[in-house]
Amino acid sequence: KQYEVAVIAGDGIGPEVMAEGLSILQTVEKLHGGLSFATRSYEWNCSYYLQHGRMMPADGLEQLRDHDVILLGAIGAPSVPDHVSVWELILPIRRAFQQYVNLRPAKLLKGLDSPLRYKGHEELDFVIVRENTEGEYSNMGGRLHSGTPYELAVQNNVFTRFGIERIVRYAMGLAESMGRKRVTAATKSNGINYSMPFWDEVVRDVHKEYPEVDLSLCHIDALAAYFISRPESFDVVVASNLFGDILTDLGAAIVGGLGLAPSGNINPEREYPSMFEPIHGSAPDIAGKNIANPIATIWSISMMMNHLGYRDLGKLILDAIEDVLVEGKVRTPDIGGRATTQELGNAINEKLLAH
Amino acid sequence: KQYEVAVIAGDGIGPEVMAEGLSILQTVEKLHGGLSFATRSYEWNCSYYLQHGRMMPADGLEQLRDHDVILLGAIGAPSVPDHVSVWELILPIRRAFQQYVNLRPAKLLKGLDSPLRYKGHEELDFVIVRENTEGEYSNMGGRLHSGTPYELAVQNNVFTRFGIERIVRYAMGLAESMGRKRVTAATKSNGINYSMPFWDEVVRDVHKEYPEVDLSLCHIDALAAYFISRPESFDVVVASNLFGDILTDLGAAIVGGLGLAPSGNINPEREYPSMFEPIHGSAPDIAGKNIANPIATIWSISMMMNHLGYRDLGKLILDAIEDVLVEGKVRTPDIGGRATTQELGNAINEKLLAH
Ligand SMILES: CC(C)[C@H](C(=O)O)[C@@H](O)C(=O)O
Ligand SMILES: CC(C)[C@H](C(=O)O)[C@@H](O)C(=O)O
Repeated sequence: KQYEVAVIAGDGIGPEVMAEGLSILQTVEKLHGGLSFATRSYEWNCSYYLQHGRMMPADGLEQLRDHDVILLGAIGAPSVPDHVSVWELILPIRRAFQQYVNLRPAKLLKGLDSPLRYKGHEELDFVIVRENTEGEYSNMGGRLHSGTPYELAVQNNVFTRFGIERIVRYAMGLAESMGRKRVTAATKSNGINYSMPFWDEVVRDVHKEYPEVDLSLCHIDALAAYFISRPESFDVVVASNLFGDILTDLGAAIVGGLGLAPSGNINPEREYPSMFEPIHGSAPDIAGKNIANPIATIWSISMMMNHLGYRDLGKLILDAIEDVLVEGKVRTPDIGGRATTQELGNAINEKLLAH
Repeated sequence: KQYEVAVIAGDGIGPEVMAEGLSILQTVEKLHGGLSFATRSYEWNCSYYLQHGRMMPADGLEQLRDHDVILLGAIGAPSVPDHVSVWELILPIRRAFQQYVNLRPAKLLKGLDSPLRYKGHEELDFVIVRENTEGEYSNMGGRLHSGTPYELAVQNNVFTRFGIERIVRYAMGLAESMGRKRVTAATKSNGINYSMPFWDEVVRDVHKEYPEVDLSLCHIDALAAYFISRPESFDVVVASNLFGDILTDLGAAIVGGLGLAPSGNINPEREYPSMFEPIHGSAPDIAGKNIANPIATIWSISMMMNHLGYRDLGKLILDAIEDVLVEGKVRTPDIGGRATTQELGNAINEKLLAH
């Protein structure tokens, strides 16, 4: 079986980590005879923007649509405002392809210590399900009285019953399928008094369809604190776009850092391609130094294999990452070593081949 | 000199921790001959709501206005929706009295360990300045198509140049006065594309008035992660209402928990009373058990003394708290002991008297 893979390496360290990801894909082909990946690179990034005045061609989304999956490195460069690069590339993809689930594990890998003094592998293993198409990232709003002392800006947070229902159903279904029956929904209905009480209401409505799931609603401020004080109390956390964004970076921090954290932007109905990307950004400060950690990208490819239905291969990739970490010899600087991006990528590839 | 102090003990553990706070005020009077506090209690809380259908009388704000300061315990009970109790009591006070600064230290007290493995007192000592009157807590928005599958809710985030300027000026001035020249401004201008780019712009404009201050803008997701990985890189963090809410709970978590974290809702111009309150909520689950930690409230009273201009007394109170923690004999359960609320309050009072 052949899969069409669109590759957007992006900016900064994006191409460096993507190279390691693609080499893992080749190893997967070697391991599994019947499987092949036809990759196609799209050079859409901030340099493209500086030349063409846009982040991707007018028919960019059309070009991507025919692929089975999309791999993204990282987008963003000092020369282009962040909201331009993001709103013209990442966010349109997430929306056009109804990738309404942003799935982000917060799991401490074997061989690594958490920065949390009293927490280990037992305590640090949960999943965050982030809404990925609406809410606080609305692209709706504007400014008034520009250039005067009375200037103001309004941004609309827009939450739909449809949008909340589908993400909460996904989270509840995931909890059931993992045999982990606790779902915690992030809210802030005490302070944000229209959208968040509505969120709570729809969450409770959907919960009625999943009587075996144990639901808690938790205000985002307290929830962030609980990630530190009792991460073991979470199985599946479901959150709005912004709250999910914050919680997933925090989740990454408590399990060892952004260099490790993978994500899937998933269209569960498989009507459109899903997109897999490391959570980290383009990190212009370390770009070109060959020290970026490729694990977040390689783990994202493991998630892609799960999504395509090859859970055994997804697990082999994750095992290979953990084997290298447990040996502890080859590590990039962010996790306490001196290896290059390539050396760490190679080490993982070798473990994977040896399986 | 006599100060008029309005006391709203509130719900749950509010009255329990407030009793210890008030007893500290009495000790302060003993220590400082010329100083007295005329306290007046306002029984406005969720029980009041259940009787009167409102959280405070129609002229409640008028009644509070004549005081020099307000002390608040905690508000909220399972019998009243959070957004009602909050929007009819805490938030109107913050707004009516232009308490636009919510000042919240994130400082690891002597005698305590951080839950962060590699971080100690050196690394954990900064201040968060939260905007307290606008932004995401707008009270503006609504719902459409209720009861249909097309139902939606909109919440407007409203940011004004006026509102951003005054909070950023306060943060910059504070950094200067503390001799700590780094200000980090939380943003999310990559994802939230009207309000947050505006916030960034005004932050940069105000920064021009403070050329000696070293400013960084940092996206809230990364910033939350940096609270874990490099808290030592912060001196003063300035944030919008919601981002400040999240960051201050996280700040509390990395320095030992919500039982310790104080706050001041400050009107810097002193045209109106400022309000001091622990960050924690009313904690209905432990209410009435006499195990709530009174330190957050007592530390809030230390902040109140600073605000009133008695920095020496503010410091004595904080020293007394630290002395008790260093001795380590009297601790409430949340910080690893078996003492009651009163025992810990008494121990701090004794240290303060002995100074
Ligand atoms: C009670 C709640 C609305 C409040 C807030 O979000 O401001 C609290 O969390 C706080 O931080 O003081
Ligand atoms: C680049 C940015 C807009 C993006 C987001 O906030 O969604 C990133 O932080 C992420 O988490 O994928």
